[in-house]
Amino acid sequence: MKKVALIMGSDSDLPVAEKALGVLKEFGIPYVVHVYSAHRTPEAAKTFAEGAEENGVGVIICVAGMAAHLAGAFAANCVLPVIGVPVGGGALGGMDALLSTVMMPSGVPVATVAIDGAKNAAYLAAEILAVGDEGLSEKLVAFRKKTAAEVLQKDSAVFGKYTK
Amino acid sequence: MKKVALIMGSDSDLPVAEKALGVLKEFGIPYVVHVYSAHRTPEAAKTFAEGAEENGVGVIICVAGMAAHLAGAFAANCVLPVIGVPVGGGALGGMDALLSTVMMPSGVPVATVAIDGAKNAAYLAAEILAVGDEGLSEKLVAFRKKTAAEVLQKDSAVFGKYTK
Amino acid sequence: MKKVALIMGSDSDLPVAEKALGVLKEFGIPYVVHVYSAHRTPEAAKTFAEGAEENGVGVIICVAGMAAHLAGAFAANCVLPVIGVPVGGGALGGMDALLSTVMMPSGVPVATVAIDGAKNAAYLAAEILAVGDEGLSEKLVAFRKKTAAEVLQKDSAVFGKYTK
Amino acid sequence: MKKVALIMGSDSDLPVAEKALGVLKEFGIPYVVHVYSAHRTPEAAKTFAEGAEENGVGVIICVAGMAAHLAGAFAANCVLPVIGVPVGGGALGGMDALLSTVMMPSGVPVATVAIDGAKNAAYLAAEILAVGDEGLSEKLVAFRKKTAAEVLQKDSAVFGKYTK
Amino acid sequence: MKKVALIMGSDSDLPVAEKALGVLKEFGIPYVVHVYSAHRTPEAAKTFAEGAEENGVGVIICVAGMAAHLAGAFAANCVLPVIGVPVGGGALGGMDALLSTVMMPSGVPVATVAIDGAKNAAYLAAEILAVGDEGLSEKLVAFRKKTAAEVLQKDSAVFGKYTK
Amino acid sequence: MKKVALIMGSDSDLPVAEKALGVLKEFGIPYVVHVYSAHRTPEAAKTFAEGAEENGVGVIICVAGMAAHLAGAFAANCVLPVIGVPVGGGALGGMDALLSTVMMPSGVPVATVAIDGAKNAAYLAAEILAVGDEGLSEKLVAFRKKTAAEVLQKDSAVFGKYTK
Amino acid sequence: MKKVALIMGSDSDLPVAEKALGVLKEFGIPYVVHVYSAHRTPEAAKTFAEGAEENGVGVIICVAGMAAHLAGAFAANCVLPVIGVPVGGGALGGMDALLSTVMMPSGVPVATVAIDGAKNAAYLAAEILAVGDEGLSEKLVAFRKKTAAEVLQKDSAVFGKYTK
Amino acid sequence: MKKVALIMGSDSDLPVAEKALGVLKEFGIPYVVHVYSAHRTPEAAKTFAEGAEENGVGVIICVAGMAAHLAGAFAANCVLPVIGVPVGGGALGGMDALLSTVMMPSGVPVATVAIDGAKNAAYLAAEILAVGDEGLSEKLVAFRKKTAAEVLQKDSAVFGKYTK
Repeated sequence: MKKVALIMGSDSDLPVAEKALGVLKEFGIPYVVHVYSAHRTPEAAKTFAEGAEENGVGVIICVAGMAAHLAGAFAANCVLPVIGVPVGGGALGGMDALLSTVMMPSGVPVATVAIDGAKNAAYLAAEILAVGDEGLSEKLVAFRKKTAAEVLQKDSAVFGKYTK
Repeated sequence: MKKVALIMGSDSDLPVAEKALGVLKEFGIPYVVHVYSAHRTPEAAKTFAEGAEENGVGVIICVAGMAAHLAGAFAANCVLPVIGVPVGGGALGGMDALLSTVMMPSGVPVATVAIDGAKNAAYLAAEILAVGDEGLSEKLVAFRKKTAAEVLQKDSAVFGKYTK
Repeated sequence: MKKVALIMGSDSDLPVAEKALGVLKEFGIPYVVHVYSAHRTPEAAKTFAEGAEENGVGVIICVAGMAAHLAGAFAANCVLPVIGVPVGGGALGGMDALLSTVMMPSGVPVATVAIDGAKNAAYLAAEILAVGDEGLSEKLVAFRKKTAAEVLQKDSAVFGKYTK
Repeated sequence: MKKVALIMGSDSDLPVAEKALGVLKEFGIPYVVHVYSAHRTPEAAKTFAEGAEENGVGVIICVAGMAAHLAGAFAANCVLPVIGVPVGGGALGGMDALLSTVMMPSGVPVATVAIDGAKNAAYLAAEILAVGDEGLSEKLVAFRKKTAAEVLQKDSAVFGKYTK
Repeated sequence: MKKVALIMGSDSDLPVAEKALGVLKEFGIPYVVHVYSAHRTPEAAKTFAEGAEENGVGVIICVAGMAAHLAGAFAANCVLPVIGVPVGGGALGGMDALLSTVMMPSGVPVATVAIDGAKNAAYLAAEILAVGDEGLSEKLVAFRKKTAAEVLQKDSAVFGKYTK
Repeated sequence: MKKVALIMGSDSDLPVAEKALGVLKEFGIPYVVHVYSAHRTPEAAKTFAEGAEENGVGVIICVAGMAAHLAGAFAANCVLPVIGVPVGGGALGGMDALLSTVMMPSGVPVATVAIDGAKNAAYLAAEILAVGDEGLSEKLVAFRKKTAAEVLQKDSAVFGKYTK
Repeated sequence: MKKVALIMGSDSDLPVAEKALGVLKEFGIPYVVHVYSAHRTPEAAKTFAEGAEENGVGVIICVAGMAAHLAGAFAANCVLPVIGVPVGGGALGGMDALLSTVMMPSGVPVATVAIDGAKNAAYLAAEILAVGDEGLSEKLVAFRKKTAAEVLQKDSAVFGKYTK
Repeated sequence: MKKVALIMGSDSDLPVAEKALGVLKEFGIPYVVHVYSAHRTPEAAKTFAEGAEENGVGVIICVAGMAAHLAGAFAANCVLPVIGVPVGGGALGGMDALLSTVMMPSGVPVATVAIDGAKNAAYLAAEILAVGDEGLSEKLVAFRKKTAAEVLQKDSAVFGKYTK
């Protein structure tokens, strides 16, 4: 199976990034993890992006905050799907990271998920890899069913406790 | 090859949606086009989403404005990658559509592109389908090279005309 | 008397939702409480919405955060008045939930109250049920008088303590 | 049947307000129309609000822009459901009107609809009056079916023209 | 000397409001303090506003949060200068209170100061009363000189400690 | 009677500023008009501010856009009440001018009115001058009555034409 | 004298960029003009940035819109001062470009000017080059004096025409 | 070597400002530190700005919050490059300070860095002084290399620990 490459702009983004790894593990998707900065190590980022496809990477997830250029820099240097996770919590709550990630010019898309939405980045990566992989697709369907069952279980608990 | 399903929330979104179709045609990607509304035809939207994979759809693009729930509704009813295009131009310039599309809860991701970024939705769909398709991947690389060449040609023209 | 259905998108919304229940109790309005997710349990949500009127529900209150589609999903599947409570506190302070709830397309309205305004959702539900119920209407008038009296009592205390 | 009172803060809001009247007419709901300003004619606004219930009004719709206090002023002076329509188009695109209308303090709710969403205000008023009126409820169901049919008709047209 | 009336929308606004009282005391300006709510006690607010000038009030300061209509309600019911202090700290950080206070329609101005800027409301009230009162004007000039001296003293300390 | 000084940051602000002059004329309030820039002519602005009180000025109105420092610069150099009018229409619709004008630090208040609210700046100036001037106060009361009458006249017209 | 390099992300930014060239010409500062895209021609942009200092460039001005990464990309690849001009006018009025340009991580600064502020980018470049160039510094002082004189001339005209 | 002048609007800005001093020290750049307020000590600020160039200052850094006029006031009174650091953390998270600092009118630029970006202000000052100083330029290159090495070291650690 193709790998997911999870790149974060700084190791301070680890608490957000780790949520994605748990999801990938759950689905048995192999991954590599890197810290590259679009601004501090542009060369290393570019080198990784250019070689990613050959190295068996199928999807790249980039986690970055503030003027978050990381996802855009990877998208500029390869044609793999790049998923951007804007990191929240700074002065502007992540609105800066969201706009810097999502408002990409034509021809170089970044698949943006919610602020701090690293889990959804991993689910999206799984959905992308599942397009050509029926087994993974079935795992995703099973996951959805499990999630729904959990919500309905909570529904029963809440309904029982609160309804008057 | 898997198809792209392009769904718009209203036929008033056609001017935005059509930009995506041009790109898909350029890459020879087959597509179906529909008008479904998350709020006015929830049943039809759900039915399409549930059957999409079986009908040969690989990626779904949803184009919608205001409290844009269309992409989320499709993402809730299948495990295919769903790309959301927030439509701009209303009272809030599309900020409402952007937040309604991108800030999805965990487990149900929407791959969001820029406001009115229908072209990039199509490029992203192509990148997703190219993960398992070397020929399409090569077309994407060629497209990027052509784009770069065009920019550099403009650079020459501008450099020649303006540099003093 | 018709019931109020209070739906929350996740049981993490309980602290906000519970404020509404206290108000409904105060007015003697019967209610049912559920956890349904527009994205994780779309089918259950739809089923409830479609049967709500027959099951004696007069007003539906939906409490949800982020790209809050819950109220819209209920509004799409029945013609009862649906009140939306955007939940605050995330990366964007609830602005995402507010816009996702209030900016609904024509034909499918959601009666939106303030971010975290679950109490007001309950008062609004009471006002709606009171349109055809003089007794409830009188209770609302009495509540307003009590509220006013409390403010004026605080006014006396503050006036006495601070005026120089 | 109870009437709807449609109040606008200035006759410059007529283009927005008129959209609501068309909807009310369509459903055969009687209405009165007034221009009252929360700031320029506070006395007249208060007098109308206080007498509204006795005069057969069931729901009040307030249409106002900028620091839109109109809906709040009506909500403060009666216990009828008050629907607020924030008017857009000024310096801040209606964000000021939206926040001034929706962020009401506890005890005095305003049912807020989208910026310039006068049509939805009328649909919401109809839904409120329909809680105790089966005939009106059936008209609303019929309207929804008609709307869905129109969308599906557009879907057919678009599908036929664009799908490749 | 004319009095300043300091009105707050809720006694929860006391921590903000008290900062204004300290300033008024410093300048020897008499004041009355009240808790009135534009929405919960509209009648009491109106009665106070209408009688304010006759009761020796020269300036009114209104402190309120969220959809802050308090200053507008006072401005609508008298022709005294009304100063609005938007209270911060809610879901939207006070942006709702700021826009609800400052974006008033033509003919009914509110002199708005910064979010939580109760001190500046008091200084502004003092400046307004000083237009016809040379003694107060001199006190204000002296205050400004004292403030400047304090800044320059801090400048000396910082300059001495940090300059290299 | 004291004069109003109307300062604009650029003669491109004249269309906004002129609206204030019409109001001042209506109330018979004398005024001087200047173009001073906080950034381009800081010395001239300071000189005017420092001499304003001696030259018979009672209130200063500053009209400026973008990072609108004009009102703050005048407030820093005199203790007269300074009214700030943020000019709209630029890239950010005037939000930049609003925040630059209203969010002043403690000790140096600016009485801020709505974006492009030059008329209200003039009404506020009149209210300030009326604190010590019964004749002007009566004119303001008369103006309010006239305004109310005009609204009620429009109410009659609209009520007659639209009520069904 | 060192040159200014003016880079724009797309030749559609020419109308904004040209305003800078006029200023540079006025001060006799040599310049080169290029169209490079951070996303479409990352290699060419990097090559230019790396060689800029050797090629006699002293300051780089980058003009770009949306998720404007251009200035950041240049800042990442050289240690010359890089000035960023966010381009306005898109769906979000340039707020996206502003935040993408200014919110840079520590170690890689971008000197950001106003949205569409290309003229100021050129003035800032001149100020930077003037740090070691007395002649240029004197030209800047003269320019400021001329600007001030123009404002004061407009002041005379406005004062004469409008003061009553 | 020319000095950097670091000005803060209040000594409460010291925690932000001190981060800049560490950077300047690291590069061996001499500096002076002052507390001046654009509004409380406009005269002292102006005097410093006017004499700065003669006193050996090459770059001015201004650190200020809210309606942050400090950088603009310095830029208005000299032709040295002025770097503005908007201070965050108030009611609006620093958005007010950012817009007040960056949206300067034509002719008087402020080189704005990120909210609370004092470190980057110092790096930018170093880059500006390095335009005419090869030794400093080399130090900046060395710093960038060190930063890159640190990121790559973290990359190794993260890669080793997390990749599966």
